[in-house]
Amino acid sequence: MKFFSDNAAAVHPYVWEAMQAADAPDAAYDGDALSRRLDEAFSTLFGTECTALWVATGTAGNCLALSAMVPPHGAVVCHREAHIEVDEGGAPGFFTHGAKLLLADGEGAKITPDAIAKVLDPIRNDVHQVQPHAISITQASEYGRVYTPAEVAAIGALAKARGFGLHMDGARFANAMAQLGCHPGDVTWRAGVSALTFGCVKNGGMGAEAIVFFEPGLADVVRYRRKRAGHLQSKGRYMAAQVLAMIEGDLWLENGRAANAAAQEIAAACGARLMHPVEANEVFVVLSPAEQAALHAQGFDFYDWPAPEGAAGAARLVTAWNSEPAHVLALARAIAAL
Amino acid sequence: MKFFSDNAAAVHPYVWEAMQAADAPDAAYDGDALSRRLDEAFSTLFGTECTALWVATGTAGNCLALSAMVPPHGAVVCHREAHIEVDEGGAPGFFTHGAKLLLADGEGAKITPDAIAKVLDPIRNDVHQVQPHAISITQASEYGRVYTPAEVAAIGALAKARGFGLHMDGARFANAMAQLGCHPGDVTWRAGVSALTFGCVKNGGMGAEAIVFFEPGLADVVRYRRKRAGHLQSKGRYMAAQVLAMIEGDLWLENGRAANAAAQEIAAACGARLMHPVEANEVFVVLSPAEQAALHAQGFDFYDWPAPEGAAGAARLVTAWNSEPAHVLALARAIAAL
Amino acid sequence: MKFFSDNAAAVHPYVWEAMQAADAPDAAYDGDALSRRLDEAFSTLFGTECTALWVATGTAGNCLALSAMVPPHGAVVCHREAHIEVDEGGAPGFFTHGAKLLLADGEGAKITPDAIAKVLDPIRNDVHQVQPHAISITQASEYGRVYTPAEVAAIGALAKARGFGLHMDGARFANAMAQLGCHPGDVTWRAGVSALTFGCVKNGGMGAEAIVFFEPGLADVVRYRRKRAGHLQSKGRYMAAQVLAMIEGDLWLENGRAANAAAQEIAAACGARLMHPVEANEVFVVLSPAEQAALHAQGFDFYDWPAPEGAAGAARLVTAWNSEPAHVLALARAIAAL
Amino acid sequence: MKFFSDNAAAVHPYVWEAMQAADAPDAAYDGDALSRRLDEAFSTLFGTECTALWVATGTAGNCLALSAMVPPHGAVVCHREAHIEVDEGGAPGFFTHGAKLLLADGEGAKITPDAIAKVLDPIRNDVHQVQPHAISITQASEYGRVYTPAEVAAIGALAKARGFGLHMDGARFANAMAQLGCHPGDVTWRAGVSALTFGCVKNGGMGAEAIVFFEPGLADVVRYRRKRAGHLQSKGRYMAAQVLAMIEGDLWLENGRAANAAAQEIAAACGARLMHPVEANEVFVVLSPAEQAALHAQGFDFYDWPAPEGAAGAARLVTAWNSEPAHVLALARAIAAL
Repeated sequence: MKFFSDNAAAVHPYVWEAMQAADAPDAAYDGDALSRRLDEAFSTLFGTECTALWVATGTAGNCLALSAMVPPHGAVVCHREAHIEVDEGGAPGFFTHGAKLLLADGEGAKITPDAIAKVLDPIRNDVHQVQPHAISITQASEYGRVYTPAEVAAIGALAKARGFGLHMDGARFANAMAQLGCHPGDVTWRAGVSALTFGCVKNGGMGAEAIVFFEPGLADVVRYRRKRAGHLQSKGRYMAAQVLAMIEGDLWLENGRAANAAAQEIAAACGARLMHPVEANEVFVVLSPAEQAALHAQGFDFYDWPAPEGAAGAARLVTAWNSEPAHVLALARAIAAL
Repeated sequence: MKFFSDNAAAVHPYVWEAMQAADAPDAAYDGDALSRRLDEAFSTLFGTECTALWVATGTAGNCLALSAMVPPHGAVVCHREAHIEVDEGGAPGFFTHGAKLLLADGEGAKITPDAIAKVLDPIRNDVHQVQPHAISITQASEYGRVYTPAEVAAIGALAKARGFGLHMDGARFANAMAQLGCHPGDVTWRAGVSALTFGCVKNGGMGAEAIVFFEPGLADVVRYRRKRAGHLQSKGRYMAAQVLAMIEGDLWLENGRAANAAAQEIAAACGARLMHPVEANEVFVVLSPAEQAALHAQGFDFYDWPAPEGAAGAARLVTAWNSEPAHVLALARAIAAL
Repeated sequence: MKFFSDNAAAVHPYVWEAMQAADAPDAAYDGDALSRRLDEAFSTLFGTECTALWVATGTAGNCLALSAMVPPHGAVVCHREAHIEVDEGGAPGFFTHGAKLLLADGEGAKITPDAIAKVLDPIRNDVHQVQPHAISITQASEYGRVYTPAEVAAIGALAKARGFGLHMDGARFANAMAQLGCHPGDVTWRAGVSALTFGCVKNGGMGAEAIVFFEPGLADVVRYRRKRAGHLQSKGRYMAAQVLAMIEGDLWLENGRAANAAAQEIAAACGARLMHPVEANEVFVVLSPAEQAALHAQGFDFYDWPAPEGAAGAARLVTAWNSEPAHVLALARAIAAL
Repeated sequence: MKFFSDNAAAVHPYVWEAMQAADAPDAAYDGDALSRRLDEAFSTLFGTECTALWVATGTAGNCLALSAMVPPHGAVVCHREAHIEVDEGGAPGFFTHGAKLLLADGEGAKITPDAIAKVLDPIRNDVHQVQPHAISITQASEYGRVYTPAEVAAIGALAKARGFGLHMDGARFANAMAQLGCHPGDVTWRAGVSALTFGCVKNGGMGAEAIVFFEPGLADVVRYRRKRAGHLQSKGRYMAAQVLAMIEGDLWLENGRAANAAAQEIAAACGARLMHPVEANEVFVVLSPAEQAALHAQGFDFYDWPAPEGAAGAARLVTAWNSEPAHVLALARAIAAL
């Protein structure tokens, strides 16, 4: 019974079908009919003209997007626990050719205009200090917290006022949207987002994410950077097929909802153990080493997590689009029984 | 009837099967059972202990391998028409952080110790000039020519004498091996190759190549660089499945043989039109614009190619593992009838 | 009466003389007789065989040294307020091709093995997280604090145990040595320092620092990197002349002592205003805006500084080798009179 | 009697004087009065508003300028024997973060629109090939040849039509202007040059060149890049002093004329030995090894040079602003007597 990562979940049958339907020969790279359909499909989804490029990983998506917003001598403001800072093996430094990440604090791995200002204010506008050129936020955040449209818009306004790009890491964008219930445009371009890494892999895809550009010009640069980074796959039609299978119907949202519902079921059993409100598909809970061992012994797989102050241990429980109801129920009961 | 690129061919049924068999959840990234089997599978194939990492594209494979051999202030010697120089959108400069490619000449896009020496000899060993640290060759070459074991070994000896790494771009390694009939170790580690980009995508794979390291130490660096380049896919088991499907049986060789045989059938019809001996799955032929138009009118798809001196036009015809015999026969007849 | 930076001080007459004596034509770059004398001069000074390269700025010196210790996918541990983090315009990211700085805390901008461990311990040794390869400390620190030989040795032991390089930013190394009174080897190579940026510019030089390498191999890389960074000046003899003028006699130490003595004189007048013990040539003092204005009105130039908690303002007072005794006395009196 | 490089020549007395006059403390970096005078001084010299930044070396000047014109995924067209390609230790790759140099041919190390077109025409405008963004020419060229205003303007027109930047490496700009006798604006901004590296070091300076920007915007980027490259010297007033001493009077032109005249005197003695017309301060001559030895034996220092086809040897003779008339005469006579 696996709750260690949505990364490990199987590929959704619709995605398989779409990939197999792409088996007929077509033009190489992104010249095929499916890849050429991406812009329109995302424009429909977001209710505005946008450009979309497939890419194999969220790390590549995030960092390619940032590389078009930030010069090598610039910086990106993000949360201290953002994936780009903590878990991408230095990819931002690679793709941006050495730009810096400036780290803001904030509850639940979310940042606010105030937290951003605390980072920006001490920076003198001179050549001795690295100047910020973009902000990156994660939707849903690394702690499964969701930015409301108003929260994003407040950051978007700050970004606009300073001439910064605003990037959204949407590895779990579907989970955030399932929670918010609003139009996907409301937390992205209408709120000032310049580019979104639209996650599919954690949500039933195999190896394709999309970078969605709401600002003309960014995509033109990233097209070259994607090839230069070895991310322009020659059989791109299988990449496009995955993405289209997710977004041309409601699959992305349905999968997001399913994972969120499973998380809620577990959360309900956790009570005061919860370290963060559960708004997506991640549940962070205080669990002592002994309690963790007990759960492991019952067949539950999950990662431990740094314990909050005063606690002996903690764990991260992640649900997926295909978390089996019986497993979810079993886990909820097991935790309640601790 | 498509002869424009082996990149466009369908995925082989065995590869599909292997990918689907990987659908069960397993550890993320390359911690899964399939990814962990790669080293052994390639060690068996090559008859020596080696380390193998999957990666989505040949460009990423080539450039990650080079990035472990060459410091940013160094250089790589390759053929003037090598894929890394001509067709990778500057990826070598990106992955090596600005190292140079030093361009050697040679018939059929192959280089020799003499051609390499012509590049190396004028370089003064001082800080004003960029110093070479590696050599890269392509097997089969960009013109479908094959290096014999002795030819590789001669280059390997030069590399060893100078302390250089030797990289082999094996996007069409299967086609080369189908032609050579020797042991794969004979043209790689026994001949001094440090790392090989083992191509699968042009040979019936979907989006997975392998970098095979014959020198301990190189892989240790590339593991970090792969993640940093956004190439560590989270559902790596689908990548490993593709590669294993190719090499744990004879699929890679069979596919290479099938494509080569189709190329030979076409070549036999080309006579004096042939621009290069056909040793793999590419046929370069002199075809006037009118002749090209005539073939296009009959339903044959292919790319034109820069005409050799004295000719009015030329074309590149590429076969694949699944080139249909009827199409191949039709093309051969059509050319013969020109 | 200028106390804003030792960077602004005049060039020492001996340095001028040495530069003018270098006016006779000699070999270009670093092939001249003076440049070739550097290794020996520093070996004598430090009591061990070492290699020294001149370079125009401390930023270049620090970052070239680090670039030889840290791969692009690696990281350097330094203090949160280190010059390389705060004041070099992102140069570490440029010279190391995107490596990260990992920020440790510590009183007086000094770090300890414990503070370093706090940074290192949470880093998992996997490819998702950037791995540290070096430590950089500043002697004297950005707050004019000095590491004792034992303190450096403790960090050196940690570095050695982990296989890290240890870099010392010695922009004010002379001031530190003037304070310590020990042998310069005691706080460098004997304590595990791999490379030292030996500052001259703040200490009476014009535009030449030296990178002193105590580990064979590092200098060999930096020679190429220095040229590649445009830092190999063609009339290098004027660079070498400056450095030799400083170190072939006691000039460097005398100048350091003079600046330190001036700082002590001011410090003695500051009493409880002092924010840090004064161990070099910088005095950080609590001064309200009104007090600052009063001093400015009396003709004293200095930079304001972020106020410590509970204070209304602060300032940084920097002395130099040539701070005029009358000015120093005047400033001390003026502060005492506040 | 030294004819090996103008790099080795002494510093001109006026430059010494100007540097010594800068000894009074002033603001650090480029905030001093002299540095702040550069823009105006160059604007007067070139007859148009321009921005100028000092930098220690031609390599840094060239590559910083290019880094503002070319993205990391782009390319620069230059001559196959351009200094940036052959003699800067890979600095263009470093400063541009991996952009390529595309090599054009041309007599005397000069390029023409036709030669540039030969490089550009085969480049497909797709992501697989590195796209050019700038052209760099050297005035006077690496073989001492000079571009006329019309020749530069023709290249400038091509650059403008393609949206490229046009960089001029003017390490020997003074020698070129001494030969041309036209207004310096005629071969620079009026002819479409975006940025010029204005050389001083080979012409009597010590360690300061200027990058002159004729396009607003480029300098704004380079200010940050200069600091990030460790090229913002803290005692910048000594840099500015050198440059101003050269250009606020006629010193730069007088020195250029003196060096050129010496070269003409030698050239007149060379007759059919000349490999290139002598238009600046370099004389390339066919000299057999025996003849070279004979000249060396008479006390003449110079570098040998790759022999042209059919010749047994060659040499490069370089004059400087302070070549002693007696030495020049002696060399001319010695060559004539061979």
